[in-house]
Amino acid sequence: MLSSLTQFETPALVISEEVALRNIERFQRHCDDKNLKLRPHIKTHKSLHFARAQIAAGASGITCQRVGEAEVMADGGIDDIFITFNILGESKLGRLRSLAERIKKLSVVADNDVVVDGLSKVFETVSKPLKILVECDTGGRRCGVQTPEGAIALAKRISELPGIVFGGLMTYPAVGGQSGVVGFMTHAKAGLEKCGIACPVVSSGGTPDMWDAQTHGNTVTEYRVGTYVFNDRSLIERKTCDWRDCAGRVVATVVSVPTKTRVIIDAGSKILTSDLLGLDGYGHIVGHREARIVELNEEHGIIQCDQNNNFKVGEQLIIIPNHICVVTNMLDNAWLARKDGNMCLLPIDARGKLN
Amino acid sequence: MLSSLTQFETPALVISEEVALRNIERFQRHCDDKNLKLRPHIKTHKSLHFARAQIAAGASGITCQRVGEAEVMADGGIDDIFITFNILGESKLGRLRSLAERIKKLSVVADNDVVVDGLSKVFETVSKPLKILVECDTGGRRCGVQTPEGAIALAKRISELPGIVFGGLMTYPAVGGQSGVVGFMTHAKAGLEKCGIACPVVSSGGTPDMWDAQTHGNTVTEYRVGTYVFNDRSLIERKTCDWRDCAGRVVATVVSVPTKTRVIIDAGSKILTSDLLGLDGYGHIVGHREARIVELNEEHGIIQCDQNNNFKVGEQLIIIPNHICVVTNMLDNAWLARKDGNMCLLPIDARGKLN
Repeated sequence: MLSSLTQFETPALVISEEVALRNIERFQRHCDDKNLKLRPHIKTHKSLHFARAQIAAGASGITCQRVGEAEVMADGGIDDIFITFNILGESKLGRLRSLAERIKKLSVVADNDVVVDGLSKVFETVSKPLKILVECDTGGRRCGVQTPEGAIALAKRISELPGIVFGGLMTYPAVGGQSGVVGFMTHAKAGLEKCGIACPVVSSGGTPDMWDAQTHGNTVTEYRVGTYVFNDRSLIERKTCDWRDCAGRVVATVVSVPTKTRVIIDAGSKILTSDLLGLDGYGHIVGHREARIVELNEEHGIIQCDQNNNFKVGEQLIIIPNHICVVTNMLDNAWLARKDGNMCLLPIDARGKLN
Repeated sequence: MLSSLTQFETPALVISEEVALRNIERFQRHCDDKNLKLRPHIKTHKSLHFARAQIAAGASGITCQRVGEAEVMADGGIDDIFITFNILGESKLGRLRSLAERIKKLSVVADNDVVVDGLSKVFETVSKPLKILVECDTGGRRCGVQTPEGAIALAKRISELPGIVFGGLMTYPAVGGQSGVVGFMTHAKAGLEKCGIACPVVSSGGTPDMWDAQTHGNTVTEYRVGTYVFNDRSLIERKTCDWRDCAGRVVATVVSVPTKTRVIIDAGSKILTSDLLGLDGYGHIVGHREARIVELNEEHGIIQCDQNNNFKVGEQLIIIPNHICVVTNMLDNAWLARKDGNMCLLPIDARGKLN
């Protein structure tokens, strides 16, 4: 497949469809076996092509982080969307309401009263109430109510207000934080039951721990993963995947060899990004373990290598990025390498939908 | 001006037109006083609006890093463009040729034989030869021939081949590297003169050292700057500018206050980017020196603050980014705050033009 890369202009991102579809199918099978619903996060591919492939493989719906991403997915026919972000502000809430009116299932999260009250106010005149899951901080230290008691209190408020219904609990756990999820959620669910509040969904997620995903005795019902579709160098480091599971590769051209140990490529931070994720260097150069991308300028990548590397101006290099989710987000289009060897443009439909 | 920011959806980038125009005019005056030609780099704003403002203020032309950026600028009527990147590959060279045929002045750089030979081959059948400047590494340790002798040898090759002409010397110096520039260029110019090769242009650049820009006794003829148009936190650290010179601000909303010392905003790495440039934290929050943006996820910014900060969900914060050039590149549009208080959309015309 990669032998035909020399035809197009660099820098470019090439996605192997075969590898991506295999990643989708394999984790779907894992979730099916564990009796977990799978709700992939589109943040990694931001593409209708792969969102549809995830649904076709058996996903129960998709996850988005922004209203704008959800709008793009809805335009493309995806009709079960979960937005895992606190939504605030009149204009954005208005767009959320329009979105709810045109797709089959929409749910969102909230972790505080201000967000819940804002959602209620906008949805109280809508015939179909909006489903809200309470976001819980089970150790990830990002958003989320801090205690099971906090989750119960917010669920009560959601149940009491017009226009909205309590849909369950959601968490984005710390890496390796499954026991934190189970402890928090078991406690919260017991409390909700005491109050007579049904909790139909407990949604957990995260690609690094995906192979440990399970219901934990009917505590967790749903799992969300994003990066698993393409994988990247950070997930190889964490042993979540192998090199052959990486579907996304940046192709760069050597544009200058100023010295025997310094080589310049045309991929800089405007495609590889500055995300290190704790790794050494800005990506892995396939077939050149000894060469390191030590620095990125906006349009230049600076490689430090052996005297023996003998890189040549004009040569193309294949790079597995540290963090694939932010790389796709730099591009309007990637190249999709199809199984039959053909390449076609893959639109990154929801790129740059920040709102 | 910033009081009206609450009307639009966040995260967003707001550019103060007044500040940007003042930055453009002030440095144009500096260059005029020093008898230096100014050729601003559009990589920071990527916008026709500001490229035209730079030309109107007296710039002799613009600098681009990619053929795609230059095409967008040419479409918008800019007719003197210098592309400071080694251009390789049949497809990209074909586009360069088309570009040369439709604008008044086009020049490029080269630092090796492969690039020079490729340019000659494509331009030998064009009536107007392509001007090539030799890129010199005067201490910046990126691209560039390593010695004045290397520059002379490449200039000779350019002079001998069909379709191309030698246009001068170019360097992207190290920060604080003016003496390196002068030493290298003086030596190279003397050598060129001995060979009977005219050197009409010596182009230097870099925003951090912009206020030291001068001809150094007729050695340097032209200066290139990019970031100066908007400025950023990294340039405040380097004392190149002051807070009031920062034209670009990211507006974010507090979406969650999980604990008294942890606050979550809706601006993550997909707008602020992971560029630290040696700084502490991912941007400066205006009016909150004690609060630090300690971590970015893709759509979340995590602020560590005092118990006394008392940030509220729904509150908007104004952030001066570490590195403005990569922030504009994340967006299809910014907001332009005009002098009269009105806001309008500012298209980032050349965003994502990676090729």
